[in-house]
Amino acid sequence: MRWSRYFLPLLKETPADAQIISHQLMLRAGMIRQSSAGIYSWLPLGLRVLSKVEQIVREEMNAAGAHEVLMPTIQPAELWQESGRSEDYGKEMLRVTDRHERPMLYGPTHEEVVTDIFRRSVKSYRDLPINLYQIQWKFRDEIRPRFGVMRGREFLMKDNYSFDLDFAGALRSYDNMFVAYLKTFRRMGLTAIPMRAESGAIGGNLSHEFQILASTGESEVFFDAAFEEIDFLRDQPDIEELKALYAATDDQHDPEICQVPPERLRTGRGIEVGHIFYFGTKYSRPMGATVMGPDGQEVPVEMGSYGIGVSRLVGALIEAFHDEDGIIWPEPVAPFRVGLINLRVGDAACDDAVDRIAAGLERAGVEVLVDDREENAGAKFATVDLIGLPWQVVVGPRGVRQGVVELKHRSTGERTELSPEAAIVRLAA
Amino acid sequence: MRWSRYFLPLLKETPADAQIISHQLMLRAGMIRQSSAGIYSWLPLGLRVLSKVEQIVREEMNAAGAHEVLMPTIQPAELWQESGRSEDYGKEMLRVTDRHERPMLYGPTHEEVVTDIFRRSVKSYRDLPINLYQIQWKFRDEIRPRFGVMRGREFLMKDNYSFDLDFAGALRSYDNMFVAYLKTFRRMGLTAIPMRAESGAIGGNLSHEFQILASTGESEVFFDAAFEEIDFLRDQPDIEELKALYAATDDQHDPEICQVPPERLRTGRGIEVGHIFYFGTKYSRPMGATVMGPDGQEVPVEMGSYGIGVSRLVGALIEAFHDEDGIIWPEPVAPFRVGLINLRVGDAACDDAVDRIAAGLERAGVEVLVDDREENAGAKFATVDLIGLPWQVVVGPRGVRQGVVELKHRSTGERTELSPEAAIVRLAA
Repeated sequence: MRWSRYFLPLLKETPADAQIISHQLMLRAGMIRQSSAGIYSWLPLGLRVLSKVEQIVREEMNAAGAHEVLMPTIQPAELWQESGRSEDYGKEMLRVTDRHERPMLYGPTHEEVVTDIFRRSVKSYRDLPINLYQIQWKFRDEIRPRFGVMRGREFLMKDNYSFDLDFAGALRSYDNMFVAYLKTFRRMGLTAIPMRAESGAIGGNLSHEFQILASTGESEVFFDAAFEEIDFLRDQPDIEELKALYAATDDQHDPEICQVPPERLRTGRGIEVGHIFYFGTKYSRPMGATVMGPDGQEVPVEMGSYGIGVSRLVGALIEAFHDEDGIIWPEPVAPFRVGLINLRVGDAACDDAVDRIAAGLERAGVEVLVDDREENAGAKFATVDLIGLPWQVVVGPRGVRQGVVELKHRSTGERTELSPEAAIVRLAA
Repeated sequence: MRWSRYFLPLLKETPADAQIISHQLMLRAGMIRQSSAGIYSWLPLGLRVLSKVEQIVREEMNAAGAHEVLMPTIQPAELWQESGRSEDYGKEMLRVTDRHERPMLYGPTHEEVVTDIFRRSVKSYRDLPINLYQIQWKFRDEIRPRFGVMRGREFLMKDNYSFDLDFAGALRSYDNMFVAYLKTFRRMGLTAIPMRAESGAIGGNLSHEFQILASTGESEVFFDAAFEEIDFLRDQPDIEELKALYAATDDQHDPEICQVPPERLRTGRGIEVGHIFYFGTKYSRPMGATVMGPDGQEVPVEMGSYGIGVSRLVGALIEAFHDEDGIIWPEPVAPFRVGLINLRVGDAACDDAVDRIAAGLERAGVEVLVDDREENAGAKFATVDLIGLPWQVVVGPRGVRQGVVELKHRSTGERTELSPEAAIVRLAA
């Protein structure tokens, strides 16, 4: 992609109302624009990251045996009367009345809708277990939206719902998601800590919250070093051992009780990015979502629900990966892998070298953003640091005469001079 | 994918309120479920088609130089005050009041939001042309929603917006989209006829509507045979010649005036699936979206907008491609390429042959749905015809003993007996 043909409107000044670093950097890097309080438009650079996060979540849900559906944003209020949850969300629920005066709402979550689909579709225990997920926009009318996409009103969630015949099955579904979440966050380069949690408005009696570590996190957490050490993408850790690993927020943590040896106890700051719930028959019973069991008896289905804040994760990733110069994207979610800087646009040798490197990278399937703006070198270096692409290739007149370009790794700052061909080979690997 | 682990709830009966064939077939084939009037949940099979249609649209927009963004569903009503369009949509606009009593709305279209992004981001003609698109859910509170996803209230649109310095530039952008639309529909196996149209609520004075041909189409259309003959994916037809080709709805068509030779005049029934508009400064002028021109003067930017009904297209494709037995998906949008039928589940030889064929196809990247249900052969044949997968592979005990399976092409009905290995090779091609 050529910057000159791209839509990447940077902000020079940090907007005064952006209090946290991810919000500031997303605005400055032209990733988002506020539309109204807590509601954002995603510009091309931001949407690329959002789509990559979404795709990783999708792949891990598919790998875990969940099936993707898409439920509507606008739900009939009567379903919430049936579940008895109509008042639980209070003013955070965006209520809507349609032209025929029917009460509707913009879904803050979808337990009711999915239970309605289930009860109209599934009749027998033979069709269980079922796990349905969606990646869909939701709305919570926060009284004071802030922190950018970290706490927006319109936000993208992955939410899924498991249906099982009995508690043992429901627990297997819960454990399956527990592991899938650890894998999902690890694929984005994040360390996630699962912590026992309260169930809140979703209900139920078994729940874990997943916090990712970031120096700017909301709360202090204490955890067993194993969460950093286990390779969740390769190892198949025992689920009971995983769930037994120590993890506590600072108000829960008690050094007197904590049995983790001091050298194995880690501390950090956490940001909540996921939450899983087992709530049994809380929705299936009032809504009549039953299946015929093996003994011929109808029983309400056992359910759980599982959420990941997809748009929130984009902010959380920046909170976890940035420095004073800007964002440092982990490769799996970077909007482009390479920023290719032409230091002298209009110089035939530079232009030619840039064209060849860009073509070589694109042929190899490497996503590259070419900075072909007529800006000075300082501005270009600052920009590519700001937007945080993992690799920078700098093409200048002196280097081109010597047959070399400079390769810089954003995260380590390491610089290497090498031939354009060698740069292509290295980045295509 | 194994049917026994999938979520594909077929309906035995055609719901009485489904009047048109695509609505009936989508419900029967377990693609969608109604949530409330004109509002649907997309089940796994339907969502696969929706995602494929969406991806084809995305690729063609990218190829045409448009950049993907994502604007929020909930818009501030004040933007519509600025554009002067607040009353134009009347009761079709879903109006919402948030907890702070701010008037908002669920966007039926996004001209105002995108113009707001533009005016806050772009200042100079040097940054033009710009073409931004999104694929986003919209809401129109139809008084009498019907025809399933063909005329839903919550629906998925691809909408994009072009920004140019002057009329000549805007016309180039318009023409660029004109051709991109013909390519997009052709990639789905559809013949689309562009017709001069009224601008309606979008405004402006140049507009084309794209109708695809289907025997069940809403209105009769007359058109030059060239629309069927040109290979829009390979040829680069002259845009002026394209736009001059004859196309008229029955109320416009006048045999006295039509200059197409009778042997070149085609007739068919059409379904509107796209609409493009040039409207100049209708939004940029009242909203102050100006750029500095080459002469140093500020001028309002010239705009156009372009829509494709993505969820509507899923219904329109079925209207175009079905027979009395069910859907006949064109390969590029089929939810799975192959339906693999095990006629005797539990028979070791059949199970083994099915496993080997499924594994071979999946290794080759072919999407396959394995019917491993305990149903009789008739039910399985009827189902795979109903859901319309392009190819069927039938594995039965007699064939397995002879080392053959049956390959059936859904669209032609042609059947071939061949070895499992040959079937894999043929379907992987």
